Formats: sequence, structure tokens, C-alpha cells
Amino acid sequence: MTEYIRDGKEIYRRSFATIRAETDLDELPSDVAGVAVRMVHSCGMVDLVDDLAYSPGVVSSARRALAAGAPVLCDAEMVAAGVTRRRLPAGNEILCTLSDPRVPDLAARLGNTRSAAAMELWRGRLEGAVVAIGNAPTSLFRLLELVEQGAGTPAAVLGIPVGFIGAVESKQALVAHPSGLEHLVVHGRRGGSAMTVAAINAIASEEE
Amino acid sequence: MTEYIRDGKEIYRRSFATIRAETDLDELPSDVAGVAVRMVHSCGMVDLVDDLAYSPGVVSSARRALAAGAPVLCDAEMVAAGVTRRRLPAGNEILCTLSDPRVPDLAARLGNTRSAAAMELWRGRLEGAVVAIGNAPTSLFRLLELVEQGAGTPAAVLGIPVGFIGAVESKQALVAHPSGLEHLVVHGRRGGSAMTVAAINAIASEEE
Repeated sequence: MTEYIRDGKEIYRRSFATIRAETDLDELPSDVAGVAVRMVHSCGMVDLVDDLAYSPGVVSSARRALAAGAPVLCDAEMVAAGVTRRRLPAGNEILCTLSDPRVPDLAARLGNTRSAAAMELWRGRLEGAVVAIGNAPTSLFRLLELVEQGAGTPAAVLGIPVGFIGAVESKQALVAHPSGLEHLVVHGRRGGSAMTVAAINAIASEEE
Repeated sequence: MTEYIRDGKEIYRRSFATIRAETDLDELPSDVAGVAVRMVHSCGMVDLVDDLAYSPGVVSSARRALAAGAPVLCDAEMVAAGVTRRRLPAGNEILCTLSDPRVPDLAARLGNTRSAAAMELWRGRLEGAVVAIGNAPTSLFRLLELVEQGAGTPAAVLGIPVGFIGAVESKQALVAHPSGLEHLVVHGRRGGSAMTVAAINAIASEEE
């Protein structure tokens, strides 16, 4: 039988201590650094910080929005499933529209992916929301189109889609977007639901 | 407005072509290579393959089990949420016991984490099951203890927990386990729910 640490609090404590020892967080604002630690924890890669880009007010803006009851709009069911409900300050709604039965028809009509079409069902909910895109680059591209069309300005956009086609470009488009959206991205191909969930959970509560 | 590819099938085709061009799959059995491609797709990292370890029969054993109706036992809700139900060959049950109300008391009684205690509720379901551990090293350590106690032999164990404390060691313990469990692991700190889900989805159906 292998010996291992069985105390959950001690595992968290040692994990975060290891991350802080190995990660260069000095250049990050302290609230962003706290979020970065949890993102690193979710993926096991301390060099994730090298690809992080953000607007300085993104964490405070997202925290204000959540405290005021804003919903969290997620592109993927895995993102929605991962948010720790008890960390949310106002019983905030977690919304993922990807499985809505209207989405396949919307996708055919728009000539876009289902992940992009699902964003149509966010119209009317975007203003002041916390948006978490942790899977599909086309969701992020489509979100930016909706913002350009005046569908609303989110309080913060976590743009962390993953992959080989469009992930790099969609995150560059968010950072450079003329609307000046509050944003947090992981540049490059890396991303995904686990690190996106870690970011939301870190923003929702400072408790480690 | 940014131009981007809006055809989901074309995005998949180009993604998998990019992965196959950049990843060295030659040394993998063809069924493991197919699973590796989807795992790489889920995390955006072609070097993931360097950390892959497996028993040669793991994919065929897991496929036979799923075809025969075996359940998929998951350590985390995000893993359970990510499995694409329509890919499953036999409407297989996807079970995650982490949120079971008995788990906190079990954890206190065992002196172990909730993730490990949740494994207790897998007793009676382990024999022939497909086990997917995509989050907690203590779940994997505890699973190996249950197997040692004779609680059952899974058809395959996807051991892909992530993190800084126990992840490396729990995966080494699985690979070296005297029971000779069919296994697929990602050595090192990397792992997580997204790549674990990708592995299950690739095993469940060869459709890309």
C-alpha cells in the first residue's frame, strides 16, 4: 500500500505553497495573482502564467458583478458543472445554453457552430454578466460579434478556449477588441474547462 | 469583425489533421493513438503524448466493457458532465458519487479526503467497470486500496488526476500496481477533467 497525504486541507495548503514557490507572480496585480494560482492548480503547469493576459480591472469588475447578483454565462456544460455553488456570493445563476433545443436550428440558420449559435440565447443577459468561455473558439468569436452589435457589455470575459483552430486568434481578438472589454485570457492553444472553472471559483471567493 | 471558420466539421477536420501532423503517434498502438489524438485536442498540447503510459490492452478492454453495458465511474462531476451520452454504445450509466450526502461522514470516518471517501460508494460496482479519475490523486490512491482489498477489478482505469501533491505518485502507483490493472495515465503533474473526458469519449466511439 502506498503512503499518501489524506488530509484535504493539508493537500490544498501544500499545493498552493508549491505553486507560489515555483511561479513568478510578482508582476501580477494581487487579485489576478490569486486567480492565477488556482488556474495553475487546475492544470499542474506553473508556466501557464507566461501566457496569461488581462485587463487590470478584470477581477474587481467580475467580483462586483457577482456580488450584485450577475449571472455566469458559460459556453460548455463542463464549465457550468465545475463552478462551486457555495463559493458564489449571491446564489448567482450559472447558465449554459449549448444544450438548448433551439440551438441546432439556430446554428443552421446562422451558418455557424452550435457553440456560436448558443450565444444567441445570451441576448438580453449579456449586460453586466460574467462570461466564461472555456471550450470553443467560435463561442468567443461570436460573443465579440454580439458585443459589436450592441447586445450588451459583460462585466468581464474569461476567454480561455482551447485547441488548434481559432483558439489563438479568438483570444487575440478579445484582447485587442475596440470595446475594451474587461478580460482574462490564456494566450496560445492552451485553455479549457478546468482552468476556466478555476478562474471563476477564484473570482467568486478569495477563500483557498 | 474577425474572419473565422464557422463550419464545425471543418474545424474538427483541420484540428485533427494539425494534431496528426505535429504529434509523434508512431509508437502507439492504433487504438491508443486514436485516444491520444482526442486527448491532445482537449488540452492544446501535442507534447502530452510524451507523458502517456498505458497497458497495451486498455482501449480494447474498455471498449468491450462499454459494449457489454459497463458503467463509467467518475471521480468528479466535471468528468461525468463531459461524457457525450450519444457516443456511448449501450446507454451506459455515468456515475459520480462525490456529491452523495453520505460522503462527508465517510471521509471523517476514514480520515481521508471526500474524493477518496466517494470511492467507498463504488464497492459492488467496480468489477468490470470503466473507471475515470480526472481530478483527485487521493481518489486514485483509494481506488488501488479497494482493488487490493478485493472490492473488484475494473475493466480499465483512466488515471489522469492533476496537480502538485500526489498526482505524480498516484499515477506511478497505478502503473506499477501488482494487480496488473488495464490502465491509461498521463505521467507528471498534468491531467484533469477535460483530457479524461476526451479519453472516455474517444474510447466510447471511434467517430471523430
